[in-house]
Amino acid sequence: MIKRVGKYTLKFTEPPLITAFASVAGKFESEGPLKDNFDKIIYDSHAQKDTFEEAESTFQQEALSLALSKWGSKAEEVDFVLAGDLLNQCIASSFGLKAFGIPFLGQYGACSTSAQNLIMAAIFTEGKAAKVSAAVTSSHYCSAERQFRFPLEYGAVRTPTSQRTVTGSAAFIVENPTNPAKSSKSSLICPEITAATVGVICDQGVKDANNMGAAMAPAAASTLKTYFDDTGKSPSDFDMIFTGDLGKVGSSLFSELMGHTGYDIRNNHNDCGLMIYDINKQDVHAGGSGCGCGACVLSAHILPSLIAKKYRKVLYIATGALLSATSGTQGATIPSIAHLVELSSAGG
Amino acid sequence: MIKRVGKYTLKFTEPPLITAFASVAGKFESEGPLKDNFDKIIYDSHAQKDTFEEAESTFQQEALSLALSKWGSKAEEVDFVLAGDLLNQCIASSFGLKAFGIPFLGQYGACSTSAQNLIMAAIFTEGKAAKVSAAVTSSHYCSAERQFRFPLEYGAVRTPTSQRTVTGSAAFIVENPTNPAKSSKSSLICPEITAATVGVICDQGVKDANNMGAAMAPAAASTLKTYFDDTGKSPSDFDMIFTGDLGKVGSSLFSELMGHTGYDIRNNHNDCGLMIYDINKQDVHAGGSGCGCGACVLSAHILPSLIAKKYRKVLYIATGALLSATSGTQGATIPSIAHLVELSSAGG
Repeated sequence: MIKRVGKYTLKFTEPPLITAFASVAGKFESEGPLKDNFDKIIYDSHAQKDTFEEAESTFQQEALSLALSKWGSKAEEVDFVLAGDLLNQCIASSFGLKAFGIPFLGQYGACSTSAQNLIMAAIFTEGKAAKVSAAVTSSHYCSAERQFRFPLEYGAVRTPTSQRTVTGSAAFIVENPTNPAKSSKSSLICPEITAATVGVICDQGVKDANNMGAAMAPAAASTLKTYFDDTGKSPSDFDMIFTGDLGKVGSSLFSELMGHTGYDIRNNHNDCGLMIYDINKQDVHAGGSGCGCGACVLSAHILPSLIAKKYRKVLYIATGALLSATSGTQGATIPSIAHLVELSSAGG
Repeated sequence: MIKRVGKYTLKFTEPPLITAFASVAGKFESEGPLKDNFDKIIYDSHAQKDTFEEAESTFQQEALSLALSKWGSKAEEVDFVLAGDLLNQCIASSFGLKAFGIPFLGQYGACSTSAQNLIMAAIFTEGKAAKVSAAVTSSHYCSAERQFRFPLEYGAVRTPTSQRTVTGSAAFIVENPTNPAKSSKSSLICPEITAATVGVICDQGVKDANNMGAAMAPAAASTLKTYFDDTGKSPSDFDMIFTGDLGKVGSSLFSELMGHTGYDIRNNHNDCGLMIYDINKQDVHAGGSGCGCGACVLSAHILPSLIAKKYRKVLYIATGALLSATSGTQGATIPSIAHLVELSSAGG
């Protein structure tokens, strides 16, 4: 049953399980610290397609195919797929997933989409709308750069606060714990989605599209504070608190903002944008970003660590900057949002 | 409780109620047959803002404000807002709704978004994730033309199969029937969401962005056939079957495709894209389109007719073309989708 806790937090009393997941990353990502943890590397940034956009669709297709195959089952057994990406009109998702024939619900939360998808899937599952849902998201450095900033061929110089959009996709299968699925034998070791907080849109007036971390940090802090207030929990209740893609600048602002609210997260916060690259060696300025950033780290590091009981309880807070190239050139601010998922290893 | 019926249809056994709704339309729409039914007309296509995009946000803001005020309650009492639009990165929704401070979940189903929002809201409500959800969507002729085709200033000639994007927004409040809300006195006459079918992506290879009706008709037919197969119902069970924005070309294809599946819908099908304009007098070529098209007709005609018991049971099938200007110029096909909502007047 879904129980509402406090103002905006949902508690899942029969926690949905993440019974399979897979990540597909690009060449540059395969040179970072998680290189051995991705399920597949696609070395060609065109993925043997004509365009970067089609390549990004291929990443999604591969990620969902791999997750389904790990799950030991077929697309026909999935009730819904929730998917989204950064491209205009989310074409990476619609083109990438159309061949599966699964009822499709497009999501848009910018880089917060991975968490939004999981929350939706958990609500569907626990609310009995679905036995099995899939959640897929992606981003691609080359398609994102030319859409939001400049085509790479221009060789534009990037500012120190800018982040590198991760080329990658990850897919997750979310299932009812009482569903007699193929994977039931392994359900004892599947990570659980135990709670979630849906964020409100924050806008602190940041306008610099090369400093997304600063735009998104207040949203992350707002959602995490809401979650702590709603549940009565505190940072020490968690092995780790992960943000999606705040990068160096945003992470330090986030930590400072949380300090102001009375919650000290300095000892157990890390950001997926700082984990996916070796930011001292790889030329990524303030870190990684994009829908694929948090999703790939979730699949390649966080969930495996929960299964291995290296972590028992973590928070995953994916942050999104809800701007477009149009709003940016019109001089608008960058509204941001963050959605939080509480994850536990099997049996808490 | 949510019951799964057949393959992809959800039945809501304690049907969520649409307890308030409002539509805001543009000047050209106010010259059509529904002129007296919109809650508000904004005659200035800039809505006194600097850009068409900001204007579209204003339409959303006004629509939700009006729906909340009809509902007799405040934004703080709404658990989630589900919203989406056609603009890149859905900025009409994020900018239009940020001031309300409601937990926000961005949806992208192109012109099918209005139905997708209602389905999500119904699942949230019946699944006990929310007591009250809001669903908002919009489109704007001027922002859509310059994004998907040409800026209006170019004076581009439009083909006979092209449709005119509706300038308008509508907002809906979806509530649990057992929720003791402000509107409970009137809940006896609120339309009910009794069932829903989420569509799969269809792609029949249509590539003409000036003939969206042809691209979307197969998706509408696929979803409606699934719904009939799942439920054992047939066209004669409904007073009317409404599609969102197939227009003249798409509607006739839809009717033909349904005929091939053995379901004759010719007597009780109408399309919101043919209802919002006087297509013989207004220069709209094949009819209206856009997220705002179906949503405004739902709010201005369909729901009031259910309340007045002019209709007892209807289907609302919103269709979406999942293309972008990028995919179009790259020569890709137009994948499409349709989501179906079964609506009943109070007490069936």
